[in-house]
Amino acid sequence: MAEHENYTSYLAEEYVIQEEPFYLPVGDEIELFEVAYSQNLPVLLKGPTGTGKTRFVEYMSYRLGRPLTKIACHEDLTASDLVGRYLLEGDETRWVDGPLARAVKAGAICYLDEIVEARKDTTVLIHPLTDHRRILPIDKRGEVLEAHDGFQLVVSYNPGYQSALKDLKHSTRQRFMALELTHPPADLEARIVQHESGVSEEMSVALAKLGEKARNLKDHGLQEGVGTRLLIYAGKLIARGIAPRRACQVAVTWALTDDQQVQRSVDEVVNSIFE
Amino acid sequence: MAEHENYTSYLAEEYVIQEEPFYLPVGDEIELFEVAYSQNLPVLLKGPTGTGKTRFVEYMSYRLGRPLTKIACHEDLTASDLVGRYLLEGDETRWVDGPLARAVKAGAICYLDEIVEARKDTTVLIHPLTDHRRILPIDKRGEVLEAHDGFQLVVSYNPGYQSALKDLKHSTRQRFMALELTHPPADLEARIVQHESGVSEEMSVALAKLGEKARNLKDHGLQEGVGTRLLIYAGKLIARGIAPRRACQVAVTWALTDDQQVQRSVDEVVNSIFE
Amino acid sequence: MAEHENYTSYLAEEYVIQEEPFYLPVGDEIELFEVAYSQNLPVLLKGPTGTGKTRFVEYMSYRLGRPLTKIACHEDLTASDLVGRYLLEGDETRWVDGPLARAVKAGAICYLDEIVEARKDTTVLIHPLTDHRRILPIDKRGEVLEAHDGFQLVVSYNPGYQSALKDLKHSTRQRFMALELTHPPADLEARIVQHESGVSEEMSVALAKLGEKARNLKDHGLQEGVGTRLLIYAGKLIARGIAPRRACQVAVTWALTDDQQVQRSVDEVVNSIFE
Amino acid sequence: MAEHENYTSYLAEEYVIQEEPFYLPVGDEIELFEVAYSQNLPVLLKGPTGTGKTRFVEYMSYRLGRPLTKIACHEDLTASDLVGRYLLEGDETRWVDGPLARAVKAGAICYLDEIVEARKDTTVLIHPLTDHRRILPIDKRGEVLEAHDGFQLVVSYNPGYQSALKDLKHSTRQRFMALELTHPPADLEARIVQHESGVSEEMSVALAKLGEKARNLKDHGLQEGVGTRLLIYAGKLIARGIAPRRACQVAVTWALTDDQQVQRSVDEVVNSIFE
Amino acid sequence: MAEHENYTSYLAEEYVIQEEPFYLPVGDEIELFEVAYSQNLPVLLKGPTGTGKTRFVEYMSYRLGRPLTKIACHEDLTASDLVGRYLLEGDETRWVDGPLARAVKAGAICYLDEIVEARKDTTVLIHPLTDHRRILPIDKRGEVLEAHDGFQLVVSYNPGYQSALKDLKHSTRQRFMALELTHPPADLEARIVQHESGVSEEMSVALAKLGEKARNLKDHGLQEGVGTRLLIYAGKLIARGIAPRRACQVAVTWALTDDQQVQRSVDEVVNSIFE
Amino acid sequence: MAEHENYTSYLAEEYVIQEEPFYLPVGDEIELFEVAYSQNLPVLLKGPTGTGKTRFVEYMSYRLGRPLTKIACHEDLTASDLVGRYLLEGDETRWVDGPLARAVKAGAICYLDEIVEARKDTTVLIHPLTDHRRILPIDKRGEVLEAHDGFQLVVSYNPGYQSALKDLKHSTRQRFMALELTHPPADLEARIVQHESGVSEEMSVALAKLGEKARNLKDHGLQEGVGTRLLIYAGKLIARGIAPRRACQVAVTWALTDDQQVQRSVDEVVNSIFE
Repeated sequence: MAEHENYTSYLAEEYVIQEEPFYLPVGDEIELFEVAYSQNLPVLLKGPTGTGKTRFVEYMSYRLGRPLTKIACHEDLTASDLVGRYLLEGDETRWVDGPLARAVKAGAICYLDEIVEARKDTTVLIHPLTDHRRILPIDKRGEVLEAHDGFQLVVSYNPGYQSALKDLKHSTRQRFMALELTHPPADLEARIVQHESGVSEEMSVALAKLGEKARNLKDHGLQEGVGTRLLIYAGKLIARGIAPRRACQVAVTWALTDDQQVQRSVDEVVNSIFE
Repeated sequence: MAEHENYTSYLAEEYVIQEEPFYLPVGDEIELFEVAYSQNLPVLLKGPTGTGKTRFVEYMSYRLGRPLTKIACHEDLTASDLVGRYLLEGDETRWVDGPLARAVKAGAICYLDEIVEARKDTTVLIHPLTDHRRILPIDKRGEVLEAHDGFQLVVSYNPGYQSALKDLKHSTRQRFMALELTHPPADLEARIVQHESGVSEEMSVALAKLGEKARNLKDHGLQEGVGTRLLIYAGKLIARGIAPRRACQVAVTWALTDDQQVQRSVDEVVNSIFE
Repeated sequence: MAEHENYTSYLAEEYVIQEEPFYLPVGDEIELFEVAYSQNLPVLLKGPTGTGKTRFVEYMSYRLGRPLTKIACHEDLTASDLVGRYLLEGDETRWVDGPLARAVKAGAICYLDEIVEARKDTTVLIHPLTDHRRILPIDKRGEVLEAHDGFQLVVSYNPGYQSALKDLKHSTRQRFMALELTHPPADLEARIVQHESGVSEEMSVALAKLGEKARNLKDHGLQEGVGTRLLIYAGKLIARGIAPRRACQVAVTWALTDDQQVQRSVDEVVNSIFE
Repeated sequence: MAEHENYTSYLAEEYVIQEEPFYLPVGDEIELFEVAYSQNLPVLLKGPTGTGKTRFVEYMSYRLGRPLTKIACHEDLTASDLVGRYLLEGDETRWVDGPLARAVKAGAICYLDEIVEARKDTTVLIHPLTDHRRILPIDKRGEVLEAHDGFQLVVSYNPGYQSALKDLKHSTRQRFMALELTHPPADLEARIVQHESGVSEEMSVALAKLGEKARNLKDHGLQEGVGTRLLIYAGKLIARGIAPRRACQVAVTWALTDDQQVQRSVDEVVNSIFE
Repeated sequence: MAEHENYTSYLAEEYVIQEEPFYLPVGDEIELFEVAYSQNLPVLLKGPTGTGKTRFVEYMSYRLGRPLTKIACHEDLTASDLVGRYLLEGDETRWVDGPLARAVKAGAICYLDEIVEARKDTTVLIHPLTDHRRILPIDKRGEVLEAHDGFQLVVSYNPGYQSALKDLKHSTRQRFMALELTHPPADLEARIVQHESGVSEEMSVALAKLGEKARNLKDHGLQEGVGTRLLIYAGKLIARGIAPRRACQVAVTWALTDDQQVQRSVDEVVNSIFE
Repeated sequence: MAEHENYTSYLAEEYVIQEEPFYLPVGDEIELFEVAYSQNLPVLLKGPTGTGKTRFVEYMSYRLGRPLTKIACHEDLTASDLVGRYLLEGDETRWVDGPLARAVKAGAICYLDEIVEARKDTTVLIHPLTDHRRILPIDKRGEVLEAHDGFQLVVSYNPGYQSALKDLKHSTRQRFMALELTHPPADLEARIVQHESGVSEEMSVALAKLGEKARNLKDHGLQEGVGTRLLIYAGKLIARGIAPRRACQVAVTWALTDDQQVQRSVDEVVNSIFE
């Protein structure tokens, strides 16, 4: 559990990243994010599972020297969860800021992951933070927070999941500059897998090749390509002595899908690489 | 964050606009709004995302010298959120007015954005404010607020989103004079983009041309035309050194849609303008 | 805001009408209502938006010298909202009558607008008030209110909205004498428009003609005919100097519908009248 | 309001009927109910709106000398509403029996009207009262009430409304002896109309004939036949000077249906009788 | 009301059966239940309405000398209703065990009737009681109850009602030994009807024959066969002087179905027996 | 009830397993789990009912010397149920950790059974525990728990139940190494049945053969194969003197399905084995 030693303070998902996270840029995403940050443009990250959206935000948080607040959106997250609420203590009520209010005050980078899962009241809540006024109205206290200069709003979603029901409304999405992230190219992915799992360079190249080939199975019924994370899992198992084919079966094939026919297609790819 | 310095007081989304907002009229909308205001006719603004509905209301608020209360409607907004509620403090309960009640008392311009998203009880709540009596009954207190002379009700929605489920009932819509707003003509939009983003006049004309052409892609699967805001975003990126094609890709193409075919159509328009 | 000076007391939607409201009878509706009132027959008013249901009830309230309680039904209105509830005050609970209970005690005319929008528990609640016993059971207090002699129950709905889901059950509707209200004939409507908007007689005749012709567009996709209220709006704009065609466009055409083809049909009618 | 003088005590829908209600038996329903009562058999009354189910129960309540508790079922009625609940008073909680618990203790005839509208927990609640043990378990108090000897459970519903969704489960319905009630024959109905409305014998015969004929319109789209109550309404209007055709139009035709074609069919029947 | 004298204590649906209930075994169900009891195997009873599931459990409760807790499942029954909850008393909260917790402690036979109606959290709650550990975790108290040695879990449902939505999940149903109960054979049923209703042996044989024949009408649209209970009802009416045909009409035909064609089929069976 | 003596402490579903559970490995699942444990890889167990998922986790808990927390997921389980909540005690509120928070602190193996049944907020809650940071944010206390070194997250589901509605999102499932469990081979299953039920070796071999053959009936409409548990039930009945065919009917055939045709197929298999 050495990895988390580079965080100092823990306060409800707000943390300051003290050591540079391992991040290999694919294109000009760092420059674009920096300009957006300097111009107060909210940023929308789009991309499938495992393309490093979270890691990228963590890296930019470190690079820009701002604390990070990460909030996983879901349909039971209320506006009060984000903004804050009154708590009853004995005979008194005390106001407790929610993570969004704390981020607005602290000038944090606030990352709302999978924004399309959020309830409508949550989505509407962030509109005034994307306006030129950059404010967070707190109805229950009859006050309005102005965002600290360093505050930056980042949201993400996975377009592969999009349905008619769960879609960002245009009045929301036309408030963000959008970056589309993709799976890293094979050479980059090999370096990531090697760094995170501890396998040999040769093995990491083989695993990256597996990732690339498995992503081409989309037309064979594989809903979503394999993320880098699962390749790292396979690497970790291999590094501890599990045979590569078996490691890939439990960390990639079975993890990706329950469909036996699709599993056979993935296994074939595995076998073609680890003969 | 200089923009918000022209607001003085912050009280739960009520604010007084002290400096004239930048607004370029398209037709006689200012005159019509002024007559409606003088005759106590509630106003309905219709139009797609990014046609400046909010800016227009802010401008009229400044011009008429009335405070502005802006409320974003959504399906979890309750009547109590608007009217007010009793809060428990120690052993006592204290009544706290909601933003609508405050607007009614203060004679503010009260702007209910995206009214079709509101719950039915919220919609019904504003009916008595549109009657000749102009009252807001507060059931929980057994009292009735008469609207201050300056009070003006404005609601808006985007007809492009209309569905059978989310439609204003006739008993509601036949209470409003209606203004249909459209995207500004290209010359006006160029002036707005130049003013807000800081790009050169030539570049702003090119971006306005992009806006106009992209809106003609509706038949190519683009649900909603690009709003002026995104053109300003592109301008801000360009003004900070991002190449125009790349700036338009992240601020316009990717921001507008996830559909790869539609993205190609938008990119073609971008490329035809920024050769 | 001179209009509301003819009301004296304000208590949660109960009010006593002191000056005769402007009401022009269409047929024998006044006589029928008076007989129903004398015989304790509950009354159901049916008719489209803008046919003066509310005005008629206000007029009968004035004529019969009874206070009026008006309740707009919607799907979030609970039985407690109508009957009353216990409120916590410090360490004590205090009972607060709801508007229906107050109307029953005061012998008011109680008008439930758009009854089909009400929840089932609300509909069931009024059944005992329509029985020969004319009582309102208040379960939470274990008591039963007998209606004051002057109490009269009036409900309304718009048959044009009727759907299988939102329909009065026969066990409810067979408790009411029913009056079907229609848009007033053109000469009557002209007099109303002239009285309320201040336009000339000639202009009011033209606006009434517009109303009549626009209602014939139902087969052209116009869901609901234009109500007198919107004609008055148009009149008010015209009286303040807006050109008649433009006034009718914003107060009638755009207010009535978002459908561009239907808008063209209405505009044609407007243009044929205001050449 | 003379009618309700024959009730003495009012306690949450429990009342003792002191004067014999006007009830004309159609067949052996009184004898069957008396045997059911003596044998503790719960009774289910089936029949369309206006066939006198309530009046029959009131009559049996008078005849058997038992108080009557009438509960209108709807989908928001909770088990607690029926059984009772703890109320907070200052620092103490006090138990308040619900109407079903009071009926069980008082040995009342408990009439659950439109039982199919009740929520499932309510339906299940009455099962133990129909068992040979005749008990009402009160979970929240950890106690069980044995029904007083005189307690009799009666439920009703209208089979015409039955849908797959709202149907009595067999485990519920096989706990009741069932009586099917129909509209009274014409001669009986004439006597009822005359007694309740005060019209002449001749007029009451005409109105009863209207009832009979209108019920034959079911194949012409009339969902539910006219109940005796509406005929009485028409009679009351006629007795106060309204012309018979007009009285039948507002009290029968318009009250029964919104469908213009069906209205024409009913009006034809009216006109054939009141030439 | 003599029947319930054989119960001594009443505590929230827990009762000790002191006199042997009248139960006539159909096959080896008593032996199978006793083995299941001795081996701590949970028991699932399947069968249509009126096949004596409850009576069988009551009989086994008497035979095994264990108290009985009977819980009717429905979709509004919460886990807290079963396990217990904290109640507020003045300034203190007091824990009150629910009926399932009491049964677990007392070693009762706990009978969950119509388990498929229960909410998912309720179904999951009983899983640990069917494991070899036989425990009931009480989350809110942070404690775990071990079942008393005599505790036996019995659930039931009616397979005739089964739908895709309301079905026992396999992870639940594969925790029970299952007994399928059917209507008793005619000679047994005659003895039950005679014992419970007091009719003559000849009449009871006729009623049992009616039961048998009516159950063969399933292909004529009769959803569910007549249960023994309704035959007893008919017997009770006959014993008090109601003519057999009329008694069977109200206690069997009308009680079973609202469908007139099916009613005619049942009446034909009745008439063929009681000529 | 001797089985549960090998558990010492009971604290809300957390228990320490003191005696080695009876577990017969099928393949390399123990080794894979141990590597996953050493590398902090969360584990997903997939497999039908009765394949020993719970038993396997209990065995690994014993083998690794970690306490076990088992949580049955269902759609009414809230995030607060897992993480903890404030309880009101007199005038004070006290925080009570939920079972997940306790497991995180104690370094337990936390087993979320049937994870696909969980609500979305619950699923999202475990994401940070699968990240490299291994944290559990407790929003309501504004603090973050770091997982104890020994903490291991295990989730399970049954792919046979999978529907479009109830599916693990890819952003969740790509966080787990996956093990697919199957029914044990016949020789292993015979040894388990013999050990748990006490039947002879020959009988246990026959019962294992029944299990194997019954699982081949899937194409005959048997939704889910018979689990080992039901075979043990049959064995227990047989060991207590019930005839094998009858024991298999109540413990296997009737327990598995309500479908009479499928029951006949299973009975045929039973009869072919126990001739």
